[in-house]
This record gives sequence, C-alpha cells and structure tokens, in this order.
Amino acid sequence: MRYDFGSDNTAGMAPAALAALVAANDGYARAYGADDVTARTADRIRARLDADAEIRFVFSGTAANAVALSMLAWPHEAVLAHHAAHICTDETGAPGFFGSGVGLIGLPGASGKIDPDTLKTALAAVEVGHRQPPAALSLTQSTEYGTVYTEEELRHLIEPTKLAGCGVHMDGARLANAAAAGFDLTRIARLGVDVLVFGGAKAGANCAEAIVMFDRTLARRIDNRLKQAGQTASKTRFLSAPLLGLLESGAWEQGAAHANRMARRLADGITARASFALAHPVQSNAVFVAMPPAAHQRLNDLGWACYRFDDGSVRFVCSWATEEQAVDDLLDAIGGL
Amino acid sequence: MRYDFGSDNTAGMAPAALAALVAANDGYARAYGADDVTARTADRIRARLDADAEIRFVFSGTAANAVALSMLAWPHEAVLAHHAAHICTDETGAPGFFGSGVGLIGLPGASGKIDPDTLKTALAAVEVGHRQPPAALSLTQSTEYGTVYTEEELRHLIEPTKLAGCGVHMDGARLANAAAAGFDLTRIARLGVDVLVFGGAKAGANCAEAIVMFDRTLARRIDNRLKQAGQTASKTRFLSAPLLGLLESGAWEQGAAHANRMARRLADGITARASFALAHPVQSNAVFVAMPPAAHQRLNDLGWACYRFDDGSVRFVCSWATEEQAVDDLLDAIGGL
Amino acid sequence: MRYDFGSDNTAGMAPAALAALVAANDGYARAYGADDVTARTADRIRARLDADAEIRFVFSGTAANAVALSMLAWPHEAVLAHHAAHICTDETGAPGFFGSGVGLIGLPGASGKIDPDTLKTALAAVEVGHRQPPAALSLTQSTEYGTVYTEEELRHLIEPTKLAGCGVHMDGARLANAAAAGFDLTRIARLGVDVLVFGGAKAGANCAEAIVMFDRTLARRIDNRLKQAGQTASKTRFLSAPLLGLLESGAWEQGAAHANRMARRLADGITARASFALAHPVQSNAVFVAMPPAAHQRLNDLGWACYRFDDGSVRFVCSWATEEQAVDDLLDAIGGL
Amino acid sequence: MRYDFGSDNTAGMAPAALAALVAANDGYARAYGADDVTARTADRIRARLDADAEIRFVFSGTAANAVALSMLAWPHEAVLAHHAAHICTDETGAPGFFGSGVGLIGLPGASGKIDPDTLKTALAAVEVGHRQPPAALSLTQSTEYGTVYTEEELRHLIEPTKLAGCGVHMDGARLANAAAAGFDLTRIARLGVDVLVFGGAKAGANCAEAIVMFDRTLARRIDNRLKQAGQTASKTRFLSAPLLGLLESGAWEQGAAHANRMARRLADGITARASFALAHPVQSNAVFVAMPPAAHQRLNDLGWACYRFDDGSVRFVCSWATEEQAVDDLLDAIGGL
Repeated sequence: MRYDFGSDNTAGMAPAALAALVAANDGYARAYGADDVTARTADRIRARLDADAEIRFVFSGTAANAVALSMLAWPHEAVLAHHAAHICTDETGAPGFFGSGVGLIGLPGASGKIDPDTLKTALAAVEVGHRQPPAALSLTQSTEYGTVYTEEELRHLIEPTKLAGCGVHMDGARLANAAAAGFDLTRIARLGVDVLVFGGAKAGANCAEAIVMFDRTLARRIDNRLKQAGQTASKTRFLSAPLLGLLESGAWEQGAAHANRMARRLADGITARASFALAHPVQSNAVFVAMPPAAHQRLNDLGWACYRFDDGSVRFVCSWATEEQAVDDLLDAIGGL
Repeated sequence: MRYDFGSDNTAGMAPAALAALVAANDGYARAYGADDVTARTADRIRARLDADAEIRFVFSGTAANAVALSMLAWPHEAVLAHHAAHICTDETGAPGFFGSGVGLIGLPGASGKIDPDTLKTALAAVEVGHRQPPAALSLTQSTEYGTVYTEEELRHLIEPTKLAGCGVHMDGARLANAAAAGFDLTRIARLGVDVLVFGGAKAGANCAEAIVMFDRTLARRIDNRLKQAGQTASKTRFLSAPLLGLLESGAWEQGAAHANRMARRLADGITARASFALAHPVQSNAVFVAMPPAAHQRLNDLGWACYRFDDGSVRFVCSWATEEQAVDDLLDAIGGL
Repeated sequence: MRYDFGSDNTAGMAPAALAALVAANDGYARAYGADDVTARTADRIRARLDADAEIRFVFSGTAANAVALSMLAWPHEAVLAHHAAHICTDETGAPGFFGSGVGLIGLPGASGKIDPDTLKTALAAVEVGHRQPPAALSLTQSTEYGTVYTEEELRHLIEPTKLAGCGVHMDGARLANAAAAGFDLTRIARLGVDVLVFGGAKAGANCAEAIVMFDRTLARRIDNRLKQAGQTASKTRFLSAPLLGLLESGAWEQGAAHANRMARRLADGITARASFALAHPVQSNAVFVAMPPAAHQRLNDLGWACYRFDDGSVRFVCSWATEEQAVDDLLDAIGGL
Repeated sequence: MRYDFGSDNTAGMAPAALAALVAANDGYARAYGADDVTARTADRIRARLDADAEIRFVFSGTAANAVALSMLAWPHEAVLAHHAAHICTDETGAPGFFGSGVGLIGLPGASGKIDPDTLKTALAAVEVGHRQPPAALSLTQSTEYGTVYTEEELRHLIEPTKLAGCGVHMDGARLANAAAAGFDLTRIARLGVDVLVFGGAKAGANCAEAIVMFDRTLARRIDNRLKQAGQTASKTRFLSAPLLGLLESGAWEQGAAHANRMARRLADGITARASFALAHPVQSNAVFVAMPPAAHQRLNDLGWACYRFDDGSVRFVCSWATEEQAVDDLLDAIGGL
C-alpha cells in the first residue's frame, strides 16, 4: 500500500526537523518546558506572527484545539464552526470532553469556508436557557477542504463574532500551507484571533503543535491546565526542537510550498485528463476529486491509500515529502480507472 | 545550573532510542498507530511481560495514568493510592479531569509503599451514598520514594483488592528501574494487574508511555477513547520507535541498572560522609536525603537543581545518563555544606 | 398572558398529587429515599409496568435523561436520538455535561418518530477511531411532536439496536399521555428498554421523575451516582408522594386522557375552521399548527403564550388542567387571526 | 425507629411552607422560574440580606454548592474548605463532578471553623504547574459541627482570600440557624462573599435552596448553566413558594430559633447528667456527643437514629419540628446507657 497521499501525516519529519531534534538531544535540559530550545522556538513563532503571545507546545492537534476552546467556552455554551471542521468530524468529540459538555454548532459554507450570513444569523439568535449559546468561533486555516481564507473573508467572520462578545480560535494544523499560499500570518493577531494552534506535525515536525495565546488573560494558570490535561511534556525540547529546526531553516514554509505545488500538479493532471472533476478549488495541499465509489475502490485495490469525505469526494493530500514521480504515478493510476 | 539530579527527565534520549527514532523516520508510514514499528514495539512489550495485552502508546505519564484510571472507576467512585503517589501529588488532578470527578483516596505507608492493613480497612468500609467508594487501586512500581515492591508485597495488596471487586492499575513510569532492581516483570499480569503504564520517558525514550491492558475488555473502543483524550499520535512511529530501540538493544533495563548503580554510589557516599541521613531505603534510582532547608538552599545556590518533597526530604534522581564524575561532584558539594 | 397552552408544565399539581403531598408531610421520615412513601411509590410503578426494576426519584426530566444516558454511554461514545428529541434541542447539552462529552447523533423521521432505516444505517456504520460510535438509542414516548409509537414501531427500532450491542433509553416525560392513547406500558420492559424515565411533572406531579432501571446492573452504586449529580432529595417523600397520589387514584392516566381529549378537541376545531393546517398527527396532548409568523405574533399579542418549534409550526399543549372553555376561547382567537 | 434527631431533614415542611405551597398551586404559572411567586421570593431574600443579587432556586444543597463552586474555579484549580465541610465529606465528590475535576483542599480548624493561619499558608503557597492552586474559599455557616462564625472571624478568613484573588462561597444550608444564633445576615454581602447558598430544606421547606449571586458577573448565562446541570425546575413555584411562606411568616428564623433552643436543652441535659462530654460548643441546632461505640450502638438499638461523625462523636440534630418531650425522651435514653 502506498501512503503518499493518504494524509499529510504519513510522512516523517523533514530533514531540518530531524536534525534539530538530534542536536537538541545533547546534555541535560530543564524539564516541563523551561528549557532554552523551547524558549527560542516560542520567540521564533512570535516573530513569525509579528505579535506578542504566550506560547505552549502540546502533543496533538486534537488536544491543542480542545484545550484552546475550553478557554473560550463554558460547558453550557457552544462553539461555532464549519460543520466539516476537524473539531466537528475528526476529533471524537474532544471539545466536549475537554470542555465538559461544551456544544458544537455546525455552520454551512462552500468548500469548508463558513458562510458569513449563516454566522451572523447564529450570532443573532435569541438566547434561551434550554440551548447552548455561542461563546466562540472556530476557524480553520487552511480549511478542511483545502481552501484558504483571504484576510478580507476572515475579517467578515471575525468582526461580527467579536462584536457579539465571542472569542475566536484558529485551527492552524495546516497554517504553513495557508502561508505558502499567500496568507499573511502577521494579520492573525491583528484580525482579532484570541488563540491560534500553530501546526507542526503536518508541516514536517513530529507530533507537536503550539498553542499561541494572543490574549494573555487566557494563559492564566496555563501550565496547570495543560498538566491536568495530560499535555505537558517532561522533555519539552523534543516537541519544540523540530519546530525550531523547521522555522530557522525556512523549511516550515518551503515544505508547505512544495506540498502546495505537488497538489497543483496533481489537480492539473486530473483536469487535463478530464476523467474526474475536482470537488473543491485547489488552494493549498489537498485535492478533492469527485470519484464514484467503484473507482475509489479500484484505486485502493491498486495500492493507493485515500479516503472518502463526508461530501462524497475522495481526498489526496501532499506534504513536504511528496515526490513528483509519485504524483505522476498516481495520475497514471487515476487515468487508468 | 546543573540538572543532572533534578529529575530523570532532564536527560535526553538514550543513544539506542535516538538511533531507532532516526531509523524510523524514513519513508511513509500509516498514521494513527497502524504502522509496523508500532506493532513491533507492542510485540516486544508483550514478550517482555510474558503476557497477552492490548497496547497503545501515549504522550505522557499523566495522561497514561488518568486514562487508565478512567477505565476502572466511574465519576462517583474513587481510586485508592498512596498519598504520595504521583497521581495524588504531581498531576494537577488529572485523574479527576479525565475521570470527570473521580475521587482519590490517599493511603499511608512507609517510603511510598501502601500499608496493607490500611488498604484492607479502606476496602472494608461500609458504603454510603454520600461518599465515593473505591473502585480501583493504583500502585506505583518503583514507588515515588524510590522503593521497590516485592512480588509478595504486591500480592498482599492486590488480592484483597480483587476480592473486593476493584480493578488494579500500576504506574510504571520507573518500571525499568524496578526491573533492574530485580522485580520480575512477568509477574505483573499474573498478580492481577488490569492495566499497566509501561514507562518510556524516564527510561531514555522521548515523551512516550505505553498503556498495557491485560484485561482486554478495558480496551473496547480504546482508539476512540484516546483520540477524544488528545492522546492519539498521528505519527505514532515517533512514540514507539525510541521504545523499540531501547527494548531491542537491552538499553531499557541497562540504562535503568546504571541509574540504580549511580543512586547506590550517591547513597553510599552520603552515608560514608555521615553529613545527612537517608530518608528512605535506596532501592532504585532515587536518593532522598534528610536535609535542612538552609542546606538545601545552599546546594541550589551552588548550582545543583534538586527539590524538596512533601515528607521534607530532598530528592536526587539518577538516569541512564548520569556520570560517575557527576555523582562525585555532587557528593563533594553535599560534603561541603 | 394566558399560559394554558404554553406547556404542560404551566399547570400546578393535580388534586390527587397535592393531597398526597400534604398527607406525606406529617411526622418524621427517613431522609435520602429510605422512607415508606417512596418505597410504596416504587412498588406502584413496578406494578404499573409489570416489571422488576430498580427505581429512584429525581428532580427534573433533564437530569433523569442525562443521568440515565451516562449509564449507557462512555464519553467517547454517542447516543442516537431523533434530532428533535428533547435531549437534543431543549436540555442545553445536559447529556454531554453529565456524560463528560458524550455525543448525540440526531436521526430524522416524520413527526418525531425515528425512521428505522436511518437508524439501521447509523448502527451499521463502520467504526473509526476519530468519531464517537453509538452506544445507546434514546426513544421518546410520546414524542416531541405529540405522536405515539406503536409497540411494533418500537420493536423495529429496539431490536436492531440491541443486536448491535447498544442500550436503550426511553424518555417518558409524557408517558402518561402515551398510555392514555393506548400504548401498553407493560410492553416497555419486554421490548428491551434498559432504563425508562417515568414522567411525573407533566402528568400533574410537582417536579419529580422516576428513573426506572430494568437492567439492574445499571443501578450499581446508583445512590452515589445520584448524590454526586445533585439529584438526591433529602426529603424524598416530597418527590414520591405526589406521584403516589396520582398512581393510586388513577389520576396519572385520567389526567393524561383528559389532556389528550382536549388536544383532540382543539385539533378538530382547527380542522373544522380550516384556517390553518395541522403540522403533525394529533395522537396525544399536543397540537402543532402550521401558522405563519405574523399570525403567531398576533396570537401572542392577544395574550396566548405559545411557541414556534424547529419545524416552523406552533405548538399548543394540553394538560390535566385544561378546560373545555379555554380550548374554545383559543379556537375563537385562532379563528379570528 | 425514631428519626427526630437523625438529621434536620427528617422533618417535613413547616406549616407556613406547606400553606404557601398549597396556595401557589392554583392556576397556571409561567414555567422555568418566570412566575410571580418566584420573583417575590427572590425579592424577599434580597431584602433579608439587604443586598442586590441575582437569585435562582435549585433542588438540592449538593447541587447548589457544586454549581456555585463551578463558577469560581476552573477544573485545574482547587477550592479551599474545612476538611469536615459537607462539600468534602458528604457530597460524593459533587464539586469535582460539576467542576470537571476541580480539586478540594481540606483545611483544619477546631469544631468545623477554618483556622485562619492555615488558610493564609495555603493561600501563600508557591504555585507550581503540577498542583491545583486555590481559586476559591468555601465557608459553611453554621458549620458542620454546629458552630457559628462571628463576623470578625469571617472577616479574617475572607480578607486574605480576596487579596489573593480568590472567590468566596458560603454554604448556608443552615444559615437560618446561624441567623437565629445572632449572626447578622446583612453582613454577608458586605464581607465579600461572592455566592451564597441560602438554605431552605433544613429550615422547613421541601427540597429547595437558593443560589444568591452577589457578584452578578457570575450569573452570566446562569439559566443555561442550571438547565444543563439538571437544576432548572419546570414548575419553579413549588421550589420558591415554601421558602416564601417561611420568609413572609418569619418561620424561617423562628423555626431555626426553636431548633437552636432544643439543641441547647439537649446539650444542657447531657451536661447535667454528666454521662458524656460534648465534643463541640453548641451554638446552633446540633449537639455532638463524645460517646463510645458501644453506647452509640445501644442508643440505636433503643430506636434512636443518630450517626457517628469523622471526629468520632455522635451527632443529634434538632429542627423546627423538634418537641421538648422528644428531647427529654432522648435525654432519658442517653442517661440510661
């Protein structure tokens, strides 16, 4: 079975990440996040975002998102998110677990982007005691369907949210791909995002994501919160060092740019052969193809791991590691279905 | 500041762990624990324990313990544990968070070992609706004070617990040190432990612990449970490979044996100089010294990181990485206090 | 404002309930559910259901449902229910709060009844680690839209559920109305329901519902569970006595039969005047009317409290206390819109 | 078995409470707390406390306390309380359940009153990530051992707590007894209590307690919070009316004053006979007697329900309903042991 396109976490660490991890292994270091490598990585991220923020490193995107949302919403409140967002469909209800029952309100919108009118309607709904009113908006950049919000689009979602007194979370598991697609990361804090998950794993790190709290009041007793949530690394340098290697070398974005190019190449090849239609605009590193179940099954049988999504299309994801030859091999396979 | 003796997680990965991690980085691998390296690591652990078990790899000992306990006790029940156990004193209430309010009942006992009579009393207490009755016993091997339970001692704790219908959890964050001290790991399943946390980080891995479910009914929907708890690694090979390297090379136990020897050397040196008394028997890799606050402060001022525990003594911990020279340096420093 | 038809909990206690409460007030009684009145009430309910069961009395339907579901599903699992069920739309996420993140999967079906084919599809879905798989089915009898399941309909929902290894909960907040409509209560246990909420408040009691655990294994440490959940009454006789009065006098079902007749009268009147269509079959004590927002607003302005539901229709509910004259007054008001 | 002295919740409703409940039963009333009786009761309580506050009525003291504490402390924080407080010993871990793992830190102090020096030490403890730091102080007035804090004593506990940035909760299950003992209720808000549980059940109501939020910011979305917690009464008038009857008639305090007098009579009788010593000062409605297990058992065998507490003494509680003759009967029984 070939896992090249099954997900962007089937690849290992990018060379810069691995080298930094190996380098960080030498000698003793303070435990629980108080080491120098971790401090330097946080500085790098602040610089990259051009913003002040409290930063912590956790083990998984699921935990990062769920912990972040637990800062923004009480159990008797809800989080607004695209109904296809990872927190809604792929995290086994983690927001409700970490948030002790916090609700999720799924919003529609084309290709993974929340429709602003629907958001406004949800924010304007009359509050009643027997429902969970919204306390936060969760955005995904790039989205679950591989599209990338423009700054203007984000502004139209964030402004009414803040006016309604709600907080804003951004799931940036694929933030590197959004950046490589032209999204300016220094706008995130200025747009009013309160807490950002800055993605590592899908960008070529091991299993590490950074929780970036622009609103420092959210960070009160954050070390207690994370320890209780099982998200404090005793040897934090192994979480931060790979990210540091990626950021210092430029590989964080270069790898994402490569992944985006490979997705483009794949999408173009599919369009050229005209065998199947693209289900969503290809703006980052994922290609969604409208493919009948039988064809999908044949492709699996030919040894290509790939998955059907809730919208019925089949997803192919590229990463820093994707080779041109692999794209062409896949195109041949798809062409022959 | 020197962190050699501050904790056994101030050291990096042992060479065998790092080499295995680097080797595992090549190529694509299935995500979320379905890769070959992870399967081989689980096989190794089963072999080492000479027992059948369902095994999963998680990021932290805190999470491993809390998730394991959530399998054994409902929120309206409690877990019996030594009052100085890590779950009681060092995990920020994680068992209550993952267990939605599950209680902890602290039991006394010399040097971190639960007193069997007290346990029996707790198990025999008349149940009343307004208290949380015990549903599980949590044991730590080696204990928080560096002692090692004998098989016989464990039997006297586990037998009445099982008779009372309670489950048994073992926190094996330092299981390697217990093994190196002569504890036979193949007895764990036979003694009736239901779920074991098989320690990686303190034995020279990165941040990785294995949850070993001897009682496979506990493992029902374990992947959903772990995903919801933020403990599913997308790139699981980076959790399992270092452990595999340690186990295949023998370094898991050899490193622990080295740590135990260094602790012995340190303890003997302290005893020889007769400056301070040992607060607990030294049976594994930790040395607890009865040291007045002023002396402790002086030692910190001299650059040696070390911490005072709830019993008032100061702890020094050795690891696979501890050097003889460092022990001697520390002895000199202590001698000069 | 007239609240006659706003809900079936705007009425007070029925005379038989109040009389029993007053009678139960005399003298001392054991606290926390150990009194004689409570024991007799449980006996009455078992007799009425012709089934053995462990029974406890709690304060609210929301709590009764949420506690019952917490017995059937882990946090990483989900409960299947009609998307318009009270637990999905009117309990502020209580199942997720009491169940620490347990999920709800909403199923479609006409007029509040779950469509059996959709249920089978949900039960047959391939389990994946990143979603909450179903562990229980929640049924409402009579339903949120006032319809009543036949025994045959229930069988077609319960049988595949049990085959799939899931538990079954029945929300019987309006069970009296279902019974008065001809549903045989002695079938509930035989059909395989594991835990039933036997409704009191809407049947003319104060705020009291009984949790009926046919599967007694679910009742293990139930008193601890309820105490922790804030649902143990110190003076339980005040929860049970009104129900006892209703059951011993026959008023539990007679009041519901009266409510059903009043709903029939209202529905017939609306049909006769042909001003608005009925949105759902009228089978118990609620009448749903397809009424434009402006007409609904006019009716509110005329002093009639009534609410719009998620399907867009306006609900009118009758109770044991509804007077014929009130129905006719309302019909006049509706006729004049 | 005689339950006169087993608890203050073995008595029924006081006449004024029952009469008000019966009167409130007439006619329709808005559901979910929006009725007139409930509004009037809240006004009465505000007047009695001479303070502005948001007020809600819930079903049980356990829920009232746990919900109140969940407003003041996050899951990764802890609540300071006397180790013998009801929340620590008699509520099955409800604070941890409603607070999703919130911790309890038990403080010592004679006869149920927290020792101020110990409190200051706890508040001054250095915060570390691996423990739950205090976020709130819970006080009980009158205390679990029947003593009554003076205003001065409360000030010495509350002032350092507020200075440390923590919130203050008061469990007033027996507030009426404290008031009858001379404690000025109008000081509560002025002393800095943030949220008070104003007791009903033990003062002669049915099962009803009021949550009084002096800090109105704590009341944000309180109706959602209570609904989710299963603590919203559909027919709230049945919770508020008995309290209204007690407050309007003066019976709330007169009943408590009677209870206190009966406790005094009992205590004096015991002292006079000199058979057993009093374990705690008798300042409200409870008498704790230092009685050997055999004597306690004999008393139980003679038909007197009474319970041994954690301090080893046996408790006798008086209520609005306690008769002089019953006190004398009990004294005879004790005298003959």
